[in-house]
Amino acid sequence: MSTDLTDLFTRAVSEIITEDELRARLKLGRPLRLKLGMDPSRPNLHVGHAVGLRKLRAFQELGHTIVLIVGDWTAQIGDPSGRDESRQVITHEVVRANAQTYMDQFFLIMDKDKTEVRWQTEWYGSFSLADVFNLSSRFTLADMLAHETFRRRWDEGHPVSIMELMYPLLQGYDSVVVKADVEFGGTDQKFNNLAGRQLQASLGLPPQSVFLWPLLVGLDGRKMSKSFGNTIDLTDPPGEMYGKVMSTADAVLLEYFVAATDVPMPEIDEMRLSMARGGVNPRDLKMRLGREIVCMFHGAAAAQAAQEEFVRIFQRRELPSDMPTVALTVPTPLVDLLLATNLAASKSEARRLIAQGGVEIAGEKVSDAQAVVPAQDGLVIQVGKRRFLRVAAG
Amino acid sequence: MSTDLTDLFTRAVSEIITEDELRARLKLGRPLRLKLGMDPSRPNLHVGHAVGLRKLRAFQELGHTIVLIVGDWTAQIGDPSGRDESRQVITHEVVRANAQTYMDQFFLIMDKDKTEVRWQTEWYGSFSLADVFNLSSRFTLADMLAHETFRRRWDEGHPVSIMELMYPLLQGYDSVVVKADVEFGGTDQKFNNLAGRQLQASLGLPPQSVFLWPLLVGLDGRKMSKSFGNTIDLTDPPGEMYGKVMSTADAVLLEYFVAATDVPMPEIDEMRLSMARGGVNPRDLKMRLGREIVCMFHGAAAAQAAQEEFVRIFQRRELPSDMPTVALTVPTPLVDLLLATNLAASKSEARRLIAQGGVEIAGEKVSDAQAVVPAQDGLVIQVGKRRFLRVAAG
Repeated sequence: MSTDLTDLFTRAVSEIITEDELRARLKLGRPLRLKLGMDPSRPNLHVGHAVGLRKLRAFQELGHTIVLIVGDWTAQIGDPSGRDESRQVITHEVVRANAQTYMDQFFLIMDKDKTEVRWQTEWYGSFSLADVFNLSSRFTLADMLAHETFRRRWDEGHPVSIMELMYPLLQGYDSVVVKADVEFGGTDQKFNNLAGRQLQASLGLPPQSVFLWPLLVGLDGRKMSKSFGNTIDLTDPPGEMYGKVMSTADAVLLEYFVAATDVPMPEIDEMRLSMARGGVNPRDLKMRLGREIVCMFHGAAAAQAAQEEFVRIFQRRELPSDMPTVALTVPTPLVDLLLATNLAASKSEARRLIAQGGVEIAGEKVSDAQAVVPAQDGLVIQVGKRRFLRVAAG
Repeated sequence: MSTDLTDLFTRAVSEIITEDELRARLKLGRPLRLKLGMDPSRPNLHVGHAVGLRKLRAFQELGHTIVLIVGDWTAQIGDPSGRDESRQVITHEVVRANAQTYMDQFFLIMDKDKTEVRWQTEWYGSFSLADVFNLSSRFTLADMLAHETFRRRWDEGHPVSIMELMYPLLQGYDSVVVKADVEFGGTDQKFNNLAGRQLQASLGLPPQSVFLWPLLVGLDGRKMSKSFGNTIDLTDPPGEMYGKVMSTADAVLLEYFVAATDVPMPEIDEMRLSMARGGVNPRDLKMRLGREIVCMFHGAAAAQAAQEEFVRIFQRRELPSDMPTVALTVPTPLVDLLLATNLAASKSEARRLIAQGGVEIAGEKVSDAQAVVPAQDGLVIQVGKRRFLRVAAG
C-alpha cells in the first residue's frame, strides 16, 4: 500500500469533499475515525473493492482507525443506489452469515488491530418511532429526489418504496453514532455519504469529509459487479485470477495498474508512453498485471506458477499439466458427454458450442453435433480456450 | 340525530367507498367498529366537526361502536393534508393536554358508553425500526405523490419532509390495530383513510370502508377552520354562537340546515322553494338556524334568550342589557381608550376603525381620530356592530 501523500490524494481517487478539509483533519494529530459501510447483502469481495480497501489500508498505516459498519439493518432494505428495481428484502439471518464471509475477505487486506467493527443492531435494535421522526424530519423529498437513482426511477415511472428513502437516512445516522471524521466509498456512494454529512451538520456536529474512489471496470467493460458476473474475486484461485486479468480489455490495463497495484506511478507513466508509440505488446504488460494482482492475494510463488501455467496452455498451446478425467467404456455421443461432465449446461448449449466451433477432440475442431467420442485412453477434449477433459478407457 | 337510513346515506355525506360494501357490512348483524382519528393539535371543535360527529352519533344509535383514535403520535408530525407548509413539531405534553380538551367537547355530542378511546402510544410507543420497514415497504413514492397536498407542494417547489410521508402510513396502521370496519372523516381525510384501506388489504385483512362528510363553509366563505379564524365553536356562549350564525352568507344557509341540524329534509326543501320565489326573508330562516344550533349545544331556553338579545341589539337598535364598563376620571383621547379596553389592538388600528366610521359615541359616528371622550357617567361607546363600552365617571 502506498502511503505516499501525493498518491494518497491522487491515485485511485475519484472525489474528496473537500480535499482542504481532509488535509486539515490529517493535521489534527489524533487518529481519525474513518467510516466504511459494509453491504452484507453482497458478501464476496472483488478487485474493485480492493481498490478502496487498499486506500483504507494506507490510512491505517498512517495511524488512523477504520470503523467498519456492518449494515445489518440497511441490508434489509438494500442499497437503492444504482438499482432500477426495488430489491427483495433479505432476512437478518442471511445478513449475519454474509457479514462473516465479508469480514473473512476484508481482513485479507485490512489490519484487524486498527479496525473497529460496529453492527448497526447496536443502535437500530432499539430505535424508536420518535427516533425515526427525528431523522426523517431533517430530510425533504427534494433532498431524496436529488439522488440520481431515485430521480431516474421516479421519472421513468418505476416504483420507489418509502422504505428505500430510509436507506440514506440510516446510513447517514451511522456516521452520527460512530462520530465519523471521514466516510469512504465508491463513487456510487456519494449520495449516501453526503446524507451523513448533512445529518451531522443538522445535529450541530462536525460534518464528515467524504472520500470517493473510482469504480473499477469489469471483465466485460461494464462496472465490476457481482450482478454482472464480470468480477475478479479476491477468493479466486491463482490460475483463475491470472486468467481473468489476461482477459481484460487492453484499454483498461493502465487503469488497473493505477488503481489496483502498487507499481510506482513513474513506471506506469512509462508503460503509457510505450503503449502509445507501439513499443510494447499490451499482452506483456497484462502478464505483469496478472502477476502483481495474484501476488497480492496468493504470494509471489503462486503468481509465478499461474503465469507459467497460462503460458503453457495459451501461448504454446500445450495442455495443462492437470485436467479432469472421464472414464468411458463405450463410444459416447459428444453432446451427452459435454452434458454429463458439466462442460455444457444443456444439450442445446452443447450443440451450440459445437456449431460455433468451440469444441475440439484431440486438437481437431468438431463440426458435427452428432459426433461420437471413442472410449480411447488419453484422448483430450477441449471446450473453449480453457476447459479440458481427458478420456480414460474404463 | 336522524337515524333514518336514507338520511344516513345521503344527508351530509360527501362520498362512501363503497356504498354497496358499507350496506353489506351493516347487514352483518354485529356492531361495526367505526374509526375516527382525532388530531389533538387542533383541540377545539366547531360546528364543522359537529357535522361528522352527529353522523357518527347516528351510527352509535344503530348499535355500532365508535373507536376514537387519539393521534398522540401522528400529531407530533401534524397532518399534512391541505397544508402548504411543513408544520412545527409539537410536544407530547401539549398533545396530551389538547386531547383532553378535545374529548371534553367530543362527548357533548357522542355517547361515551359506545365509544372506545385508543391512544396511539399503545402501539407506537414500542414501534421498532423493523415495524417502520414493514409499513414503509408497502407504499411507494407514487402512492404518496398521488396525495394532492404533497403533489402541489412538490410541484411548487415547497419542502415536504420525509417525516410527513409517514403520516398517512401511521394513520393507516391505526386501522390495522383497531380492526376498523369503516373509517370516517371529512373530505380532506380521503387520502389518509384510503391509505388505511390499502394497508389492510396489503396485510391480507378485510379493507375498511371509507365514509367522508362535506367540510362546512366558515363565516368568511372559506372552509371552516381554526386557522382561518372563521369558526362557530361548540364552546361559544349562546349569544356569540347565535350572532355568528346570523353573520353567515345567505348562500350557505340551506347547506347548514342540511348538514348541521335535524330539521327534516322536506321542510328544508320547502325553504329552498320559498327562497327561490322570494317568498321568505333569508334573515328569518337564519334566525331559525341560529335557534336550532344554539339549542343543540345550550338548550332551548338559551336559544330563545340569544335570539331575543340579538333582536334587541341589531334589529331594534337597543343597547344590550349588559356591557363592560370603564371608569374615567378625566377626559381621555378616544384612541387611548380603545387601546386600553382591548377594543383595538393598536393605536393605528383604533385610528383605522374611526376613519372607517366604525366607532360611535352616544349613537353618533365619530370621524375625528383626535376625539376626546368626556368622563360622563353612562356614556356608551360602540365599536362595529356588536362591541359596547359604558363609561362610569370615577
